[in-house]
Formats: sequence, structure tokens, C-alpha cells
Amino acid sequence: MAGTAGPEIERLIQLLAKLPGLGPRSARRAALHLMKKREALMEPLAAAMAEAAEKIRPCSICGNLDVSDPCTVCRDPKRGDSVLCVVETVGDLWALERAGAFAGKYHVLGGVLSALDGVGPDDLNLASLIERAGNGSVSEVILALNATVDGQTTAHVIADRLAHTGVSITSLARGVPVGGELDYLDDGTLAAAFRSRRPA
Amino acid sequence: MAGTAGPEIERLIQLLAKLPGLGPRSARRAALHLMKKREALMEPLAAAMAEAAEKIRPCSICGNLDVSDPCTVCRDPKRGDSVLCVVETVGDLWALERAGAFAGKYHVLGGVLSALDGVGPDDLNLASLIERAGNGSVSEVILALNATVDGQTTAHVIADRLAHTGVSITSLARGVPVGGELDYLDDGTLAAAFRSRRPA
Repeated sequence: MAGTAGPEIERLIQLLAKLPGLGPRSARRAALHLMKKREALMEPLAAAMAEAAEKIRPCSICGNLDVSDPCTVCRDPKRGDSVLCVVETVGDLWALERAGAFAGKYHVLGGVLSALDGVGPDDLNLASLIERAGNGSVSEVILALNATVDGQTTAHVIADRLAHTGVSITSLARGVPVGGELDYLDDGTLAAAFRSRRPA
Repeated sequence: MAGTAGPEIERLIQLLAKLPGLGPRSARRAALHLMKKREALMEPLAAAMAEAAEKIRPCSICGNLDVSDPCTVCRDPKRGDSVLCVVETVGDLWALERAGAFAGKYHVLGGVLSALDGVGPDDLNLASLIERAGNGSVSEVILALNATVDGQTTAHVIADRLAHTGVSITSLARGVPVGGELDYLDDGTLAAAFRSRRPA
């Protein structure tokens, strides 16, 4: 692609282009930027990546990514064990932590069931979830999955498999997002917000 | 930002966010993607970056980036020494090489003159350009600078400083881009294409 650049630069560009959000063109720009800021950016980033690759592992309990196993969340004595929040990805876990909305433990599925993408129950951390939910200390499982078709299908399957454990199974409320304008909301969200209306 | 993630992940996200084209949100996504594809992507990318940081240097003749100095272009015996193509950045050099439009040598300015950004003649590879253009073997200097105000100001300044050398100074043609539709072109380009019209 770069033509006159050596194979080292070519390889750097090709690898950068695999990052989400970067295409071949922006990968070239990123590579040039890195070479321009060698000491301030390229060397520290290479070191940070090598360190992360070496140290960061999925938590054997919940699937979160951390340098310690069990992860910081699972080891936190201030977080209760009775409520388990099921999320699709570590990114979703981070989002909930940023919102500060939850003080229990998580369970990261690692994706959602998808016939189209060939993702079955065995490809997700589903068996370990059933086991955790049935260990006696869990009283509620919150299914914080995306409001997509695959997310909701997965939620149904999980609810079905947890039915025998007797734990209470909940999911996130549907409604108008904070700051949302009715005129721009889709019909499904509006209808759900109406159905779940509450005293003002 | 990540909240529960350790400082290693935080640092990786902060550095990734400094790449052009990535913001804080997409840097988080990129970091998660890297950790998911540790062996296939994160480790090779860290190695490629470290290698590039160690080996790649600007060419002392033209300013191109390469693992060898002089660079591959400057050392190529098949490329003539009589025509010098002046570009703003290494990215522009790559673009011209991809187009395969030029078989001479380059000179990378490293930017353009800009009063607003405080870039003066001493911040660019301008003195070395004057020296190269005046060494007797150069007969033409092509100013392949961006068609921006700063780019054109810089072209004028270079033309002025090269006037005494007697080499012929040219710049890229203005006109309708290949595949361009007249209705979507700006007035300046249309007017330039009209002025430079040629026999069909």
C-alpha cells in the first residue's frame, strides 16, 4: 500500500487497519502519526500493548478482563454476592461501572446466541452462569443484555435455563432515554414507555 | 474511564485515544478488541510498533521515512536525479507513489508555512531543498503541495527562493478530478479547469 515504505511500515499499517474504527486509509494516517511521535506515543503504546498482552487475562469467575484472577470486581468485599448482573461483553460491564448503577457481581457472557453467526450456547459462558446462579447465595439475576433481537433471544434462553433454580430473573427497564426527544424515538421504545408508565 | 479495569488497561486506552481517527469511546472498543485477539493482533501489533520505533528514521536527504538512510527512493538507481518533487508530508509521498505518477526523487518539507500555527521557514526542510535544487544536477522542481491557502503560500515562497537557481519550477495541474461531477465541484476548481482547457 505504502509503495516505497519498507515491509516494517507495511506490516504496521496492515495490523493497525484491523482495529475497529480504522480502515486502510486511517491506518496509514495513524502509522504516520505514530512515526512522527515516536518517543511520545509509539514507544509507550508498544510497551503498554506488550504489557497488557502479557498481564491481562479473563477472570475465571465472571469473564471480566483484569491483571488479577479473580478480577477486582469479584474480589471486592464491599460488593454483594446475592445479585448477579449478566452482560454480553466486558465493554458493557465497563459501561455499567461508569454509570455507577450496580454494586453486585457481574457475569460476562462473551457474546450472544446467534444462528446467523453460528454462536451456540457452548460458545458463551452459559454453563458457568447456570452454576453460579444455582449455588444458593444468588437471589436475583439481572439480564442486562442489549435490546437487539439476538440479545433478547439470549435473555429468553437464559431465563428458561434458570427457571428451575427459583432465583428471581429481571431485565433492564425500557423507556425514554434521559435527554431523549419523543419525536426521534422509534415506535417500539415509545410503546414500551407507554406500557410501563408510572405515577409522576 | 473503564472504572473497574486496572491501570494497565486505562493506560492502553489513553494512548490509543491519541491516534488520529480514534476518540475515547472508539479507543475503548479498540482496547477490548485487542485483548480479545491477544495472540492474533495485540502481540504482533506491539512487536511491529516496537520494531518500527527502533528501526524507522527520516531519510537525511529527502525526509522520507524508511529503515535505511538514505531511503529506498533516494538509493534507487533507476530514478532520475534531475526532477525533484516537493511534498508536504510522507503521506503525500506515499500517495504519489501509489499513483505511480513520478519516477524522480522527492523532497519532504515536513509541513507548510503557517502564521496561524507558528510554522516558519526554519521549521521545514527548506534550506536543504534550496541546497539540493541548486547543486547543478536538478533541472526541474515540481511543487506538489496541497491546494490549500497555506500550501499555496508555501509554494510561492519556495518559488521565490529558487528563482536565482534558474531551475524550472512547476506545480500540479488544476482541473476536474477523474470521476468528478461538475455539479458538485467548487467554483474555484471549475474556473481553473476552464482556464486550463485543452483540445479534446
